[in-house]
Amino acid sequence: MNRSYGQCDFPIQGFQYSSDLLRCGAFGMDAVAQRVGTPTYVYSAEAIRENYRSYSRALKGIPHRVHYAVKANSCLAILALLAREGAGFDIVSGGELYRVLKAGGDPREVVYSGVGKTRAELQYALQSGVGTIHCESEPELALLRDVATELGASPAVGIRVNPDIDAKTHPYIATGLSEHKFGVAVEDAEGLYQRASEWSPLRLSSISCHVGSQIRDVAVFTDAVEQLLSLAYRLRDQGLPIDALNLGGGLGIGYATGEPSTSISAYGKLLSRAFEGQDLQIGIEPGRSIVGQAGILLSRVLYRKRSGRKTFLVVDGAMNDLVRPALYQAHHEILPVASRNSRSVRCDVVGPICESGDFLAADRMLPAFEPGDLLAVATAGAYGFVLSSNYNARPRAAEVLIDGTKMRIARRRETLEDLIRGEEAWK
Amino acid sequence: MNRSYGQCDFPIQGFQYSSDLLRCGAFGMDAVAQRVGTPTYVYSAEAIRENYRSYSRALKGIPHRVHYAVKANSCLAILALLAREGAGFDIVSGGELYRVLKAGGDPREVVYSGVGKTRAELQYALQSGVGTIHCESEPELALLRDVATELGASPAVGIRVNPDIDAKTHPYIATGLSEHKFGVAVEDAEGLYQRASEWSPLRLSSISCHVGSQIRDVAVFTDAVEQLLSLAYRLRDQGLPIDALNLGGGLGIGYATGEPSTSISAYGKLLSRAFEGQDLQIGIEPGRSIVGQAGILLSRVLYRKRSGRKTFLVVDGAMNDLVRPALYQAHHEILPVASRNSRSVRCDVVGPICESGDFLAADRMLPAFEPGDLLAVATAGAYGFVLSSNYNARPRAAEVLIDGTKMRIARRRETLEDLIRGEEAWK
Repeated sequence: MNRSYGQCDFPIQGFQYSSDLLRCGAFGMDAVAQRVGTPTYVYSAEAIRENYRSYSRALKGIPHRVHYAVKANSCLAILALLAREGAGFDIVSGGELYRVLKAGGDPREVVYSGVGKTRAELQYALQSGVGTIHCESEPELALLRDVATELGASPAVGIRVNPDIDAKTHPYIATGLSEHKFGVAVEDAEGLYQRASEWSPLRLSSISCHVGSQIRDVAVFTDAVEQLLSLAYRLRDQGLPIDALNLGGGLGIGYATGEPSTSISAYGKLLSRAFEGQDLQIGIEPGRSIVGQAGILLSRVLYRKRSGRKTFLVVDGAMNDLVRPALYQAHHEILPVASRNSRSVRCDVVGPICESGDFLAADRMLPAFEPGDLLAVATAGAYGFVLSSNYNARPRAAEVLIDGTKMRIARRRETLEDLIRGEEAWK
Repeated sequence: MNRSYGQCDFPIQGFQYSSDLLRCGAFGMDAVAQRVGTPTYVYSAEAIRENYRSYSRALKGIPHRVHYAVKANSCLAILALLAREGAGFDIVSGGELYRVLKAGGDPREVVYSGVGKTRAELQYALQSGVGTIHCESEPELALLRDVATELGASPAVGIRVNPDIDAKTHPYIATGLSEHKFGVAVEDAEGLYQRASEWSPLRLSSISCHVGSQIRDVAVFTDAVEQLLSLAYRLRDQGLPIDALNLGGGLGIGYATGEPSTSISAYGKLLSRAFEGQDLQIGIEPGRSIVGQAGILLSRVLYRKRSGRKTFLVVDGAMNDLVRPALYQAHHEILPVASRNSRSVRCDVVGPICESGDFLAADRMLPAFEPGDLLAVATAGAYGFVLSSNYNARPRAAEVLIDGTKMRIARRRETLEDLIRGEEAWK
C-alpha cells in the first residue's frame, strides 16, 4: 500500500492510494465516478468481511454470535455479503427484517430490538421465524404474548435492560442511561422476567442491553457485563432458562486521521475473560465498526467560491446524502481522489442545498481542489446512506460495492421519476 | 371554531377542535387515521390558499410576484393548488423543477436559485423555459453562459447578493452573513454584473437576496431592501436593464402555543413603502409561512413506559418522519386528536428509532395519552416530509390534503417493496 497523500493513517479501510490515485480493489475512484456518476457511496467488501472476521476471531474462545446491526447500513449487497459470512442480524423494524430476508439472511439468526414494535411488525417477525425478540417494556411483552398466542408461536424472548451506564458519547447515540427511552431498569427487570415467565407461550431465554454507540473505551462494557451476568444467575436460580446474553454493539471507530478505532481484540479479551466457561451464548451487535470505515461518499467539486474571508468548495454531495455533520456535528475527513503535492487552503466543503446546515466539512486545511476534481468523504459507510433524504428534491445517491476485481452497483441512483413515486395521481 | 382543548392559540391553521375532536375541513383526524393509517402528514388546502392570498393582498399596491419556495414542502398536490392560485415557484434543483412542471406550474414563473447548480440542471432549466436564473458565483454565471450559448437560449439572469445581515435565527437557516456560502458580496456584485453584462447571451435583469429563514422581525429586511435598491440604481445608471428585485423569503411562524407568526401585512407595508412608484417587479419567496402551520404529523401512541424518573410516550412517528426536533432543536406542540379534560403528565414523546436523538418532544406537560390514542405534531407542514428518510428501514409516511369536504391521498404510504427499489439485483 502506497499512501502518497501524506503518510498518516486515514480513517478508511479497503481504500488506498496507489500511483497517486485513491483506489478500492481493482478500481480507481475516477473510474467509479465515470461509470456511476456522483455523488456515490462506495463500499469495500474486503474491509467489511475483514471487520466481521475480526469479531469472530476475538470471540472464538467462547460460544458467541455476531449479529450485524442492520441500522448502520442496510444495503442488500452488504447484508448478503455478511449472510454468506455466517453473520446473524440485529434488526429494529419490520423494514429491516424485510431487507435481511431479501438478502438471504437466516431469520433464526435474527434478533429483533426496538422500543416501538407495532402489532403488525411483531406478527411479521413471528411469521418469519425470527430467532429472538428483545422487548423493551412490559406492555410490549404483553402485546407479543397476545400476538404469539394468536399465531400459535412460542418465540424466544429477552428483555432489554437499561444498565444506567454513561457511554461518554454524543447524547443522541448514548442509550444506556436511566433517562433514556430504551429498555427496562435493571432493578425492575427481575420482577418483569418473573411475571412474564408465566405468560405462555413466551420462552424467556435471553437478556440484552445496549450502552450506546461510538464507545471509545471498552472498560465501559465491564459494568454492563457484570450486571447482565448477575441478573442471569438470579433468573436461573429462579428457574428461568436463560441461555443467551446479548451485549449490543457500540465499539467506536476513528473518524479523524490518526484517531484509533476502539480495539476489537481488547473487547474480545474482556468478553472472553468474563464469559469463559459459562454455558451462555454471547451475542454482540456491531454495526458502525463493521461498515463505517469501509465506505466513502464519492463527490465532485462543482464550484470554488470566496465569500467574505471564507473559501467554499461547493460539491455535488450534500446534507441530504450525508447528514452526520449537520445532525451530530460529526467530523469526516475529506480526501482527494487524485493525490497531488499541492498547497493546502483553508475552506468549507458544502453541498448545493439551500441552508447553512448543509456542510460536509467546516474550516479545514485541504488540497487546492479545482472544479471537476473528485473527493472522498471518508468513513461514510455507517449512518450515511441510511439517513439520506430527498431534501431539496435531490434524488438519492447510488451505492457501489467493490470486491477485489468485481464492482457492482448495489443500488442505482434515484431518478426524477422516483421522486414523485406515490404521488402519480397528481401528475 | 370551538377550541375545547385549552383556550390558547395553537400554532396550526385550518385545523380546529369541534366536539372535542381535532378536525380539518369536514374530516376528523380519527377518520383520516382510520382510512390512511399513521404516521401521516395532513395538510389544509384552505390554510395554504389563505396564506398565499395574504401575501398577494399585502403586496397589492406594487408590481409583485409571489414565488412559493418549493423546498419547504414539494408535495405535488400543494404545488398544483398554488399553481391554480397563480403562484410562481422558487426552486433550488432540477428535482424541484421537475416537481413544479409535473404539478402544472408555469416554467416562466419559476425562479431558480442555489449555490450548486450542475451543468445538467442548467440545461434542464433552459430547455424548460425557466423564467429567471439567479446565479450565486462567477463560475456559475460562466457555466450558464456556456450552456445558454450551446442551447441558443437567452435567459433572464440575476445575481444573488449576500447583504451581510444577521437574520437572528438558527445558525443552520441563517444565510445572509458574509461567512455563509450563499450569493456574492454586495461590494463584489457590481463588478460581476458589469463583466457578465458583456457575456452574450445572458440578460442580466434581476437582483436577488435571501437573508434567512424563520425571521421574527420584519425590520431585518429594511437594510436588505435598501442595499438592493441602491445596487439596482447603480446598475441601471450603467445601462443594465434591471427590472426585477427578488427579496427571498424568510418570514417566521409561531411554533409554540401563543407565539405569534411574523406579520405578513407588516412585511407588505414595509415593501410597499420602499418600492411604491418604482418601475421594478418585486419578487418574494415565502415557503414556511405558507405551509408550516397548515400541516400536522398525525401519529398514534404505541406504548407508554417509565424509565427511571421519566415517562416516555412511544409513538409511531419518528425522527425519520420529522427530523426538525433532532436537527434544529425545534419545538413542535403535541396536540391530542380527542380532547379530554384529563390530568396532565410530564413526558417525552419519542419514536421507535434506536437512538436517543429520536424524539418529537422532550419534557412536556401533556394530556395523559394511552396506547392507541392519536396525537398531532403541530406545525409540521414545512421542512417535514421533505426531510424525511428511510432511517431504520422505515417506509416514509403518507401525505393527505384536505380541502373542505374533499380528502385526497397526496402521496401514498411507502411499502416494504419501495425500500429496496433500485437494489432489485440483490434479491
